[in-house]
Amino acid sequence: MRIRAIHHAVVPIASEIRNAYISFAKMTVSVVAVVSDVVRDGKPLVGFGFNSNGRYDQQDILSRRILPRLLEASPKSLLDADGALSPEKAWDAMMRDEKPGGHGERSVAVGVVDMALWDLAAKVEGKPLYQFLGERYNRCGFSNQAWVYAAGGYYYPGKDIPQLVDEMRRYVDMGYESVKIKIGGAPLADDIARIEAVLAAIGPDRRLAVDANGRFDRPTALAYARALAGYPLLWYEEPGDPLDFELNAEIAAESQVPVATGENIFSHQDARNLLRYGGMRPERDYLQMDPALSYGLVEYRRTLAVLAEQGWSPGRCVPHGGHQFALHLAAGLGLGGNESYPGVFEPFGGFADGVPVENGVVRLPDAPGIGIEAKAGLYPVYKKLLGW
Amino acid sequence: MRIRAIHHAVVPIASEIRNAYISFAKMTVSVVAVVSDVVRDGKPLVGFGFNSNGRYDQQDILSRRILPRLLEASPKSLLDADGALSPEKAWDAMMRDEKPGGHGERSVAVGVVDMALWDLAAKVEGKPLYQFLGERYNRCGFSNQAWVYAAGGYYYPGKDIPQLVDEMRRYVDMGYESVKIKIGGAPLADDIARIEAVLAAIGPDRRLAVDANGRFDRPTALAYARALAGYPLLWYEEPGDPLDFELNAEIAAESQVPVATGENIFSHQDARNLLRYGGMRPERDYLQMDPALSYGLVEYRRTLAVLAEQGWSPGRCVPHGGHQFALHLAAGLGLGGNESYPGVFEPFGGFADGVPVENGVVRLPDAPGIGIEAKAGLYPVYKKLLGW
Repeated sequence: MRIRAIHHAVVPIASEIRNAYISFAKMTVSVVAVVSDVVRDGKPLVGFGFNSNGRYDQQDILSRRILPRLLEASPKSLLDADGALSPEKAWDAMMRDEKPGGHGERSVAVGVVDMALWDLAAKVEGKPLYQFLGERYNRCGFSNQAWVYAAGGYYYPGKDIPQLVDEMRRYVDMGYESVKIKIGGAPLADDIARIEAVLAAIGPDRRLAVDANGRFDRPTALAYARALAGYPLLWYEEPGDPLDFELNAEIAAESQVPVATGENIFSHQDARNLLRYGGMRPERDYLQMDPALSYGLVEYRRTLAVLAEQGWSPGRCVPHGGHQFALHLAAGLGLGGNESYPGVFEPFGGFADGVPVENGVVRLPDAPGIGIEAKAGLYPVYKKLLGW
Repeated sequence: MRIRAIHHAVVPIASEIRNAYISFAKMTVSVVAVVSDVVRDGKPLVGFGFNSNGRYDQQDILSRRILPRLLEASPKSLLDADGALSPEKAWDAMMRDEKPGGHGERSVAVGVVDMALWDLAAKVEGKPLYQFLGERYNRCGFSNQAWVYAAGGYYYPGKDIPQLVDEMRRYVDMGYESVKIKIGGAPLADDIARIEAVLAAIGPDRRLAVDANGRFDRPTALAYARALAGYPLLWYEEPGDPLDFELNAEIAAESQVPVATGENIFSHQDARNLLRYGGMRPERDYLQMDPALSYGLVEYRRTLAVLAEQGWSPGRCVPHGGHQFALHLAAGLGLGGNESYPGVFEPFGGFADGVPVENGVVRLPDAPGIGIEAKAGLYPVYKKLLGW
């Protein structure tokens, strides 16, 4: 088995939303198609990858560093003992001549290709990715579904509490049991009013998380921690700078609400530091590292190994990104669940067509691989890339 | 004052050398020229920047994210109260719509432009950069010279101990009092033989540092720490992964030789974590963060503030990179000194033409700014970029 070609392109996912830190008006993603020499039904098997939102496309690092190394590697050096394409060996080839540390941007480039390689590997075996991963790596048994929550509640011009409440009600009507809104883009008192309005609208059987996107300084982060204590929130996400582990530990010690963080941590080394120094509590807090932004599943499995060493269950992981790749990982590897952005970041956000969210849970399709072919809004991006 | 145009290009600095981690055969840098509307002697003042070796050029992040933001910013928003172009305000413009965390690659892109902006700012005042910085920021008095050491001793095919010793003797003959060799690319016993040969060649009045480039696992790092204890070494650099602060602390506790690290740390947040958790000893260890790779001097000043908070003197800093920008920072801001790679990474490595190293110290030229115009091998790169 060998790689015949790798195609890649940049696709805009611009949106008028903004969180407490950035605008998404110029957001882009990279898409990658890895074409193999394995032919099924007259067509080569192709693996598809993309990066999730929040970090930009990696066109240049892909085209000038990561992809040439993969294509220049001897085909044999990329195979495992069974002759199958090995994502681990491909990872080593992609990272040749890259110095240690500095985990950002290139972690996205590698993550996009890694996703495509796992999609391809599962397609070769004719299995959905969650099953492929579950059978290989999950001795505790895998599932074909995962808990998801609806992340929204962004600030945008002209949006007020009634619109925010309507948005959250829409998510509940879609089948979500848990929703998330942004905080920190408005004064504390206004954010509390937003929280109270949403809690009243969704009722006591559903859960609300809040997300500060790393914006707060220490006094603000602690003031919010104290103000949030009176509410039955699902979690308080990224209060301060994602690398200020000491502040995170202080907030975790103070916060009655569970703390969630990790979407801006892009390597197992950084994740290990978060667990070593960030004061996160394995019995109640949440980890949100996004495999598509952080060197892919090869690296994410290293991160899961670090978690296990530090006494954490994969069930405490709820990846950022709202994409089908992480959803497969959640179902296959026993993660706690996955983010979802209903109607935003399309066509990359969202799950398979025609599969509703029911009681806060979404099923995965039985199509081989990630199932991008079963998503009518997304597959055409790849067909165009391949000239199909 | 306003920015009229920004030119940038990619320049190869390929070299046959390799350290314990990567080959430099495909290494590149980005060069940037920021053209102002200030005219002197009939020509606009232009600031020049480049990134140092070890991380790749940032063509795409510059051309599609960092530079458009700077050029789209209202000219007034980039000025300080005196009407001068403010590197700090430019920094905020360049980092608009960038999420926190993930400090790599884009830190290089911003660093390249930041260097050019400081070069320009000093040229507007007609002062060499060390003086410009020293007068502004250094209450302890600045200098026009700095301690430098010769970093070499790379592994390459066919290079054996006699060639290594010859190389070190050349550095001593050039006026260096301190030299550095790579370790970890050979078995421990071979590296010890290399160290002993170099120590014998340079004699007891000169100093030798050794650099593992983050390659070692825990047992190897500790085995080297114990083996090195018998030698009067200047420092033991980057034994393990640059983000494994726990391992660094363990090595620092064990090592009789001072520990040096930081070249793969690219933000003040990461530097703060190194100081908080890495076990580095303010009275004897060395910090090597490279401003050209880590968001420039605007961010480096934040890092120096973190150092001060944690009880560190700037005198413990000896930046990675061997470039004139860090040399000006060393002289102007009272850093301990600067790396130098005699004859390697030209034309970006090395200091001003015609200024010898004497007793391990090198002077800075009196030309305004960084003095790139006074370096005959380097200035043509920028003249070509500008079409001059």
